[in-house]
Amino acid sequence: MRFTTEQRLDDGVLEREFTLGGIPGILWTPESASAPVPLILLGHPPLGLHKMYPRLVVRARHAAADGFAAATIELPGSGDRPRWAAVEQARADLRRAIDAGERVSDEIIDALVLPLVDKAVPESQAALDALLSLPEISGPVGYSGGVISIGIRLAVVEPRIVAAGFFAGSFVPRTMFEEARQVTIPLHVLLQWDDEGNDRQAALNLFDAFGSVEKTLHANMGGHTGVPHFAGEDAARFFARHLR
Amino acid sequence: MRFTTEQRLDDGVLEREFTLGGIPGILWTPESASAPVPLILLGHPPLGLHKMYPRLVVRARHAAADGFAAATIELPGSGDRPRWAAVEQARADLRRAIDAGERVSDEIIDALVLPLVDKAVPESQAALDALLSLPEISGPVGYSGGVISIGIRLAVVEPRIVAAGFFAGSFVPRTMFEEARQVTIPLHVLLQWDDEGNDRQAALNLFDAFGSVEKTLHANMGGHTGVPHFAGEDAARFFARHLR
Repeated sequence: MRFTTEQRLDDGVLEREFTLGGIPGILWTPESASAPVPLILLGHPPLGLHKMYPRLVVRARHAAADGFAAATIELPGSGDRPRWAAVEQARADLRRAIDAGERVSDEIIDALVLPLVDKAVPESQAALDALLSLPEISGPVGYSGGVISIGIRLAVVEPRIVAAGFFAGSFVPRTMFEEARQVTIPLHVLLQWDDEGNDRQAALNLFDAFGSVEKTLHANMGGHTGVPHFAGEDAARFFARHLR
Repeated sequence: MRFTTEQRLDDGVLEREFTLGGIPGILWTPESASAPVPLILLGHPPLGLHKMYPRLVVRARHAAADGFAAATIELPGSGDRPRWAAVEQARADLRRAIDAGERVSDEIIDALVLPLVDKAVPESQAALDALLSLPEISGPVGYSGGVISIGIRLAVVEPRIVAAGFFAGSFVPRTMFEEARQVTIPLHVLLQWDDEGNDRQAALNLFDAFGSVEKTLHANMGGHTGVPHFAGEDAARFFARHLR
């Protein structure tokens, strides 16, 4: 892990870009911390870190205000990373189906999401190895948002992640429902009730499938990007309960 | 309105029993308040105030800690009020259907709930008239919990109620779905995902029907009485946002 840039944000947050095995990432740490802090791994949709930066930095500042580090890495095939023909083909198939007003087939969803999960999850685990070896970060780790299938797989295979906040707003392959049953860590699931890009019933079925004893669904009005401010505060309190 | 008892609870809450037109009620006010306070009207199931007291006083203490008064009145046909033959018949029909493992018919639900709504709502409004005339209470008013159909009707007809927290856990007559569409105040709806006495899909349909621009559903694991502590705190923050 090699840090490439470093800047102090105005609210006492240290922001450092890094690269790890060719994968770009960003780490935010609260400068006021006197002891090693827990970490929240910030997921995001596969639109590239640069494009997602404004939303990521808001989440990172909130994490830092609660005394947590936050980090994120670029997804395979996104941003400045090499393009990935198979996933680009699946995205083109998805767009074509949506433009034609067709139901998005299970085959398209599988081709779009499963390779991403298979590749992104070990990369996230390698990032955790590097991040948790830093003296300023101790764990435990929370996973927040992004592609929900990546979060589900991580919650199943990665014991350092002790709590996860999911955003029910992306296509979920059928096999992920089985993996969801194996999740046992506390979950906080956000659902935008009128999200035009989301199948509400599928999101409710997925929530039902999670094996966790503590799981909470927070549904709010509005579309994909209309999550109300107080819903973000509720999610922050969820992580504060489980990471401190 | 005539106060019949008065006692100071150990955490600075003044508890007074009252009677209003023959209906018993309880009022809790924070003694530390230096100005008139908002009010939360506490709903409860038709099991009688004495039986419900332990749970009501917990909710009232939390309201007082947030700077709010809380009040509740006995439901028609419950507790020390005169028995009500029609509703007792409907309850007997309900028990018989449940014991026989039958689906509870719409007719039984209508007979059980609609007369209660028709009678309890004007009584709650009369209680609001009396409570809001006290110098220590200023409004606005929040409605919390209890028979959800009473809360829906109150939210439609009573403009002094500016926010409502509902518990999706009781039978809802079909006509109440139409009334739900007329509700426009901010809503906070609790759903116990595995509530054995509750039809989850009906609860989700009812949430969908509410006309409010701000409505939030918080679903948690566990049965009817298993609402986690943090869910109560989320509901308290909802009232703090809207009543202060």
